[in-house]
Amino acid sequence: MSLLVVGTVALDSVRTPFGNVENALGGSATYFSTSASYFADVRLVAVIGEDFPKEHIQFLKSKNIDTRGIEVQKGETFRWKGEYGYDLNEAHTLATHLNVLATFKPNIVNDYKNSDVVFLANVDPDIQLEVLRQVKRPKLVACDTMNYWISSKPEALKRILKEVDLLTINEAEIRQLAGEASLVKAAKSVQAMGPKTVVVKQGSYGALMFNGHSVFNAPAYPLESVFDPTGAGDTFAGGFMGYLASTMNFTEESMRKAVIFGSVMASLNVEAFSLDRLRSLDYKEIVGRYREFKSMTHFEDI
Amino acid sequence: MSLLVVGTVALDSVRTPFGNVENALGGSATYFSTSASYFADVRLVAVIGEDFPKEHIQFLKSKNIDTRGIEVQKGETFRWKGEYGYDLNEAHTLATHLNVLATFKPNIVNDYKNSDVVFLANVDPDIQLEVLRQVKRPKLVACDTMNYWISSKPEALKRILKEVDLLTINEAEIRQLAGEASLVKAAKSVQAMGPKTVVVKQGSYGALMFNGHSVFNAPAYPLESVFDPTGAGDTFAGGFMGYLASTMNFTEESMRKAVIFGSVMASLNVEAFSLDRLRSLDYKEIVGRYREFKSMTHFEDI
Repeated sequence: MSLLVVGTVALDSVRTPFGNVENALGGSATYFSTSASYFADVRLVAVIGEDFPKEHIQFLKSKNIDTRGIEVQKGETFRWKGEYGYDLNEAHTLATHLNVLATFKPNIVNDYKNSDVVFLANVDPDIQLEVLRQVKRPKLVACDTMNYWISSKPEALKRILKEVDLLTINEAEIRQLAGEASLVKAAKSVQAMGPKTVVVKQGSYGALMFNGHSVFNAPAYPLESVFDPTGAGDTFAGGFMGYLASTMNFTEESMRKAVIFGSVMASLNVEAFSLDRLRSLDYKEIVGRYREFKSMTHFEDI
Repeated sequence: MSLLVVGTVALDSVRTPFGNVENALGGSATYFSTSASYFADVRLVAVIGEDFPKEHIQFLKSKNIDTRGIEVQKGETFRWKGEYGYDLNEAHTLATHLNVLATFKPNIVNDYKNSDVVFLANVDPDIQLEVLRQVKRPKLVACDTMNYWISSKPEALKRILKEVDLLTINEAEIRQLAGEASLVKAAKSVQAMGPKTVVVKQGSYGALMFNGHSVFNAPAYPLESVFDPTGAGDTFAGGFMGYLASTMNFTEESMRKAVIFGSVMASLNVEAFSLDRLRSLDYKEIVGRYREFKSMTHFEDI
């Protein structure tokens, strides 16, 4: 089924202890769509500048991503520059140039309005609301956010939370949003703000899904080498939402499988810079790693 | 079967954001034995001062722990004073008074020398070696250690690692010991030092067991409130080793169940100050939480 995503398409400059890249393909919607493209038909809504390399659009099209929703505007593409130390769980932002993103007003293509599943990646909550106003009621709406919006636009963020079924958020951010150190209490408090399901991303420790009264604990894949964690959260969300859009089954059992597919995609993505590892995955690799997650967490009942 | 532990019996003063205790029953061997007592016959080797309250010995005896190995020496009992902030994964030591521990030379009771399983809790690696020299070859020997011994007694620590089958160690410590940020690489490097099995304790994120070439990822129990994390690692080791001593089955399957029993005991222990939560557990509570771990981590295969 169809999966609509709104978010950023960016050019990232990233330095990690293992190397660096300049102006590589990045952005929340890029990671999300590429990851989700292995599962579902993805429609991408974002803005780029006139400087955006055409080869990147060609790449997205090669993954069968519908790019008609990518608006080209006068000016430069959104750029992010960051670095990671040996603790790859924490990005240090060195520079953010919003450029064309600063004045972005999404205008949803007519064909996109009936999308079954919608993911509002990490952008200004007012943009997220604007997208939601333009689509017909989809079967599942999820969003992501970040510390910047939690502190600068708390009211707009609370309005969007009332409208979504599911929130993906990292550990530090949910503590900030709920004003609560305990993740269990923070998740309950955020569920009370709207989303029935809260997926807490814990970087190299995996993810916790709070779905109604149920809690699911997914590990991260213990990688020998992580080269670049940029986009791991969006890649996770892409695998997660992509799987859900492919089955349209939102039972607890299906959501748990989706969390594992998200974790599989994120674990593959961080094995290389930018989204290079996601460019030409074989579905067998995805299934193989899913089974490794299964065997890595299995223990007998008593 | 019989399980011998050498470690500390201490009086702890602990402050957390949720309260504080003064001179409460503590120490690595105390937490370990109490936790293990729910699974196996425990023999405790430690030293205390003349000031040690008799009621604590009575308590240990009430858990069927063999306390003949607790030596009473002139002077005061080992004392530890620490506090935790909202990040309960990290203890801040305020004071350590070794007292009688400073001159402790363990002398193993004859009846203890044929113990089937031995756990060398976190003490001076020279004391750990001394204990190992006095026991007949047990079926399984495990040890724990800490940052202090890794930096101050690296040679003695390496000697003990050559002699043990299994090491329990926390995340920051294994990185320090191996000089390696990647946990997977660090675990391989530590396995090459001796222990075939390395259990990495990750606090509120659970534990990773590297057993030969296999990796097992156990979550922590997502608690609404953690009151006092003191002793969580030793309580984990107690449940883990206690279960192994009760079955004498060291297959991968059995070791995985042991990791979960360890996690169950640790998750119960942190729900109250000192080891109050472990004082009078019902075995049904342990089994109930084990099953919660099972349901919390379960997902369908593909």
